[in-house]
Amino acid sequence: MSLDATWFSEPHELSGSAISFRIKGKLHEEQTPFQHIEIYDTTDWGKLMVIDGCVMLTTRDNFLYHEMMSHPVLFTHTSPKRVVIIGGGDCGTLREVLKHREVESAVQCDIDERVTRLAEVYFPELCESNGDPRAHLLFDDGVAYMRNLEADSIDIVIVDSTDPVGPAEGLFNEAFYQSCLRALRPGGILVQQSESPLVHLDLIKAMRNAMKNAGFAHLKTLPFPQPCYPTGWWSCTMARKHLDLSTFRERGAATKQFPTKYYNVDTHKAALATPAFVTEAIGD
Amino acid sequence: MSLDATWFSEPHELSGSAISFRIKGKLHEEQTPFQHIEIYDTTDWGKLMVIDGCVMLTTRDNFLYHEMMSHPVLFTHTSPKRVVIIGGGDCGTLREVLKHREVESAVQCDIDERVTRLAEVYFPELCESNGDPRAHLLFDDGVAYMRNLEADSIDIVIVDSTDPVGPAEGLFNEAFYQSCLRALRPGGILVQQSESPLVHLDLIKAMRNAMKNAGFAHLKTLPFPQPCYPTGWWSCTMARKHLDLSTFRERGAATKQFPTKYYNVDTHKAALATPAFVTEAIGD
Repeated sequence: MSLDATWFSEPHELSGSAISFRIKGKLHEEQTPFQHIEIYDTTDWGKLMVIDGCVMLTTRDNFLYHEMMSHPVLFTHTSPKRVVIIGGGDCGTLREVLKHREVESAVQCDIDERVTRLAEVYFPELCESNGDPRAHLLFDDGVAYMRNLEADSIDIVIVDSTDPVGPAEGLFNEAFYQSCLRALRPGGILVQQSESPLVHLDLIKAMRNAMKNAGFAHLKTLPFPQPCYPTGWWSCTMARKHLDLSTFRERGAATKQFPTKYYNVDTHKAALATPAFVTEAIGD
Repeated sequence: MSLDATWFSEPHELSGSAISFRIKGKLHEEQTPFQHIEIYDTTDWGKLMVIDGCVMLTTRDNFLYHEMMSHPVLFTHTSPKRVVIIGGGDCGTLREVLKHREVESAVQCDIDERVTRLAEVYFPELCESNGDPRAHLLFDDGVAYMRNLEADSIDIVIVDSTDPVGPAEGLFNEAFYQSCLRALRPGGILVQQSESPLVHLDLIKAMRNAMKNAGFAHLKTLPFPQPCYPTGWWSCTMARKHLDLSTFRERGAATKQFPTKYYNVDTHKAALATPAFVTEAIGD
């Protein structure tokens, strides 16, 4: 059957599949200098944010993505004090990062202030840590921000961006990764959302090659479920100059003093498991 | 945007979400005595089988479901010799089961012969083991088949059914699980597809309670990705009278003499990881 206008649908051209949510109505729509943003109210997924036609997040399932973009990398680093988030304008990743008490500073640099202003209205729970004195919200070009950062000054870079077309295109290449590597202190880690393990293996391979060429010797792609993104199966890729990425502070994760909905020691380990066909394609 | 007739869409009423595939055309449609079956040709997912409006499988991603319905349970059992599959008419689970050389007999009991006949035409790769002398294809009522099985006669029951409405309703209750338990030899294991960990937790809880009430003391729900099913995230639940389900024949899995696309020792362990919110809901 067809889906009529009571559904918001994101047809994903590359994979010939689509994900849709039943909607009660459109709450907001605007064209910013950078992108087209829509907010919908859904029947079962809470609020839905769409950028340039692509689902960014829903109230119901964003915990999967935000937890997996932050806790695995933070528990892999031995002592994460200074964190930079590139993109992440909905502030959900920032909130997860700030749950870690050892974090002294978390900069969120998103090019489009409107994403954050709309998140404050429609996803206030994701913005509840925006007033934390450790939080620094910038609205600027992430590529330039990373290029201009002092060398050896941060512990973790989280690239929480849209797909590698449009504003986020410059976040998926060797020059950007070189900036990240330069800004990272010894033991520092870069993590980036890396699309679907099922239908974006070519993109994952290209990203990983660019990271390697930039000087990141250790890479690990972590799959996790994410129903609102194409195929419902997503991933992030961690990269580090030295030191393996398959061990983490298990005791710290097991005794963490904050709640999570998906993340725990076991799901962290689960994300380190690479399916047979992914190993064959990317050799992880 | 809306999706027109160039897409096949399965709106999932319960969760207010939908998954769609872009189609090139409809290859077949029929009403059997049991259900309505459609076969589509898709642009990117190969063939698509739909029963009563619900996506059953696509050529591209069925390996996830079929491997996870068979290899974890077979490598958990110490010596799986006699296997019964209830449902499974597309023969994909049967094919995976027969990859295990120690299996001496695999009975597939699906109520609707037409599913198998159509799978032979449109998913021939799933049927390539149907001629194996260990394979026995029955077309009969799975509830009655299990009820009439000799006690202590089989090692594994795999319930590879449609959703718990329509023909498969009788496969999700205590009476059926009692039949399974009675038919299982000591150490035997039941495994059943158990829907989405995100949107079917009530169903998973009810299933697990019915299994417990039937006498299965040990339960384990294993999540895995499955893009073509609602939310793209699915699960199976293993049940056993005695013996824990969280260890398995790791060496056997690591040295298996047959190929898999998703399953390996690591993804088996990954499926044993229970997300925090699932633990909270079902106590697994």
